[in-house]
Amino acid sequence: MTVITLTTDFGLRDGFGGVLKGVIWSICPEARIADITHTIAPQNVLEGALALARAAPFFPAGTVHLAVVDPGVGTRRRPMVARLGGHYFVGPDNGLFTAMIEDAHRRELAEEYIHLDKPEFWLPGVSQTFHGRDIFAPVSAHLAKGTALSIMGTPMADPVLLDLPRPERTGTGWNSHAVIIDTFGNITTDLRAEQLEGRAVSFSVRGRQVNGLVESYGWRRPGELVALVDSEGFIEIAVVNGSAAQTLGALVGDTIQAIYE
Amino acid sequence: MTVITLTTDFGLRDGFGGVLKGVIWSICPEARIADITHTIAPQNVLEGALALARAAPFFPAGTVHLAVVDPGVGTRRRPMVARLGGHYFVGPDNGLFTAMIEDAHRRELAEEYIHLDKPEFWLPGVSQTFHGRDIFAPVSAHLAKGTALSIMGTPMADPVLLDLPRPERTGTGWNSHAVIIDTFGNITTDLRAEQLEGRAVSFSVRGRQVNGLVESYGWRRPGELVALVDSEGFIEIAVVNGSAAQTLGALVGDTIQAIYE
Amino acid sequence: MTVITLTTDFGLRDGFGGVLKGVIWSICPEARIADITHTIAPQNVLEGALALARAAPFFPAGTVHLAVVDPGVGTRRRPMVARLGGHYFVGPDNGLFTAMIEDAHRRELAEEYIHLDKPEFWLPGVSQTFHGRDIFAPVSAHLAKGTALSIMGTPMADPVLLDLPRPERTGTGWNSHAVIIDTFGNITTDLRAEQLEGRAVSFSVRGRQVNGLVESYGWRRPGELVALVDSEGFIEIAVVNGSAAQTLGALVGDTIQAIYE
Repeated sequence: MTVITLTTDFGLRDGFGGVLKGVIWSICPEARIADITHTIAPQNVLEGALALARAAPFFPAGTVHLAVVDPGVGTRRRPMVARLGGHYFVGPDNGLFTAMIEDAHRRELAEEYIHLDKPEFWLPGVSQTFHGRDIFAPVSAHLAKGTALSIMGTPMADPVLLDLPRPERTGTGWNSHAVIIDTFGNITTDLRAEQLEGRAVSFSVRGRQVNGLVESYGWRRPGELVALVDSEGFIEIAVVNGSAAQTLGALVGDTIQAIYE
Repeated sequence: MTVITLTTDFGLRDGFGGVLKGVIWSICPEARIADITHTIAPQNVLEGALALARAAPFFPAGTVHLAVVDPGVGTRRRPMVARLGGHYFVGPDNGLFTAMIEDAHRRELAEEYIHLDKPEFWLPGVSQTFHGRDIFAPVSAHLAKGTALSIMGTPMADPVLLDLPRPERTGTGWNSHAVIIDTFGNITTDLRAEQLEGRAVSFSVRGRQVNGLVESYGWRRPGELVALVDSEGFIEIAVVNGSAAQTLGALVGDTIQAIYE
Repeated sequence: MTVITLTTDFGLRDGFGGVLKGVIWSICPEARIADITHTIAPQNVLEGALALARAAPFFPAGTVHLAVVDPGVGTRRRPMVARLGGHYFVGPDNGLFTAMIEDAHRRELAEEYIHLDKPEFWLPGVSQTFHGRDIFAPVSAHLAKGTALSIMGTPMADPVLLDLPRPERTGTGWNSHAVIIDTFGNITTDLRAEQLEGRAVSFSVRGRQVNGLVESYGWRRPGELVALVDSEGFIEIAVVNGSAAQTLGALVGDTIQAIYE
């Protein structure tokens, strides 16, 4: 009863995500499959890495996370699996698993990296443009079925890592960055609440100032600009019942200053 | 083999819906999970209530319906479960279940309301902003696993109810309201076909008149404005192979008059 | 453990796709259900036919493919099932299965066509506007449960067939057509790579020329216009890490010339 998750930039219109399910269930009919997202911005590996990192920890041990944001498909970039603690991550070796790998380092989890180079575990007649279907889905299904990871490829030690955004300490506080703008227009930063060490703080974003942290949206009036701790422990800028991104014209990458009082 | 449905305003991009599945399958690996919709307009509780009411009756007895449109998350609004006949409804106590509760009254189903106040059935370390993940998904999974509802909280008698739109009788017929504009641009009203008692009728909407009811779209020419009975028994205004909402500039809340001949 | 796939123009907002799952699981709780797509352009039967044809072959034998793009719902068009080899296709008799039927002819698969005219296998009280829910979902679930196809209707011999786009041979090569523009803005044509017989070729599309075929996107620089063989064996026009459709202003139906050198 293994779970397989899907995180891609395939969109929802063309059926590419459905095809992955067909391939998986052809090999492992018992797998449970959960879409995390198929609407990562095309070829945006960083966005995919962050979305995966926010969702993966909530799945049970043994879960296989299939992720495909893959501008290098059909070139020399390696297909790979990372086993990090009890979770498997299957996809292109292009940095998509950076946040999970850093987390595994931090938590001292067991790590194993395999370069997928055994075509007998793939679909026959691999295309040059759809390795999600031809390589990653079959390998994920074989893992879900209990096939040993080690026989599906060759150990590797140097997975590609992205340079993830990180907040910088300043004389008066922190320079953090807008890393995710969600469906609601909430702006998530790379600054962990615990990095503020409980000190009183205000935030400066796109020329607007926000004083202090509220506990949740509903404690202030609709339309008010607030800062709060998001559900992952990061500082978030929001507009109550509205869109902070739209109100501020904010974009991913914006600097958001945290200033100690 | 219990079914859990998901109705939220989480959108499809950020993986929030996927996270719910991870939490559910961590507790109850056997649950079948059906997305009803994740694209309710942000914080629009009424829209969520109507979408849920249209889909829930088609699920088998024993289904757990997890619904989260929750502008009051992290404030004093109660997390709750409504058991209505054989169906469970899990979410915030903000009126999201109004249509199901009214339907249960009408059909004289057994009703039970529980205020969820037993954190031992939640994820540890509940956030202030994502009770879907931290409270409602675990409770739904426990229900699917067979945990008794009564031990997960305290009985309550007064769930919040919305004032749902209802048609008004006039001297010449009815004033009904546009309550849902669907993907096709069809305009669903709050007027049940049976309320017309089989009388000949015309409709007036945004200055246009529509005479009588057709049996289905395909009986008229593409582009023609028609009225018909929708699949739930309500009066609907449509344009054959087109969008009535766009053609008319219609919006949810518009008055649509039904005038007896 | 039968798989049912869903291909519709229902959109993702209104919960219509979720309703199909409720109906299916009420009849066959063991069915695995995979969404192929719910965002076919409204009433665009050809687009639905092509999406289904690209995804269906990757599902295991025994799969039931429920497809609903149905402008004629509630009129005299027949509800039908096509059994083609080991796959079942359930939906309106309006050409939606043309590509699968042509493929079955080509591969000399067993074919069986049934006009669904036995209401005892449908929901009671069939609506005039939602046969996906009332007829096709219950029939799909009964098939998944093992009910014999033959008892659910009457044999028919003349399913409606669309005139699918096909490339035309010219003096200097081929006139092919843009048939699908995918999420990435890649333009898929109706020209199979094998029809080029390995000859050197250039392409002309919206006044721009593309020389030769590349192996995959990543072999050229971001922004470059390229031609390649897509994952189904068809010629595709793409912009590396960009949108060919947007760059060229290309639309489905455009002629794309292949010119032998």
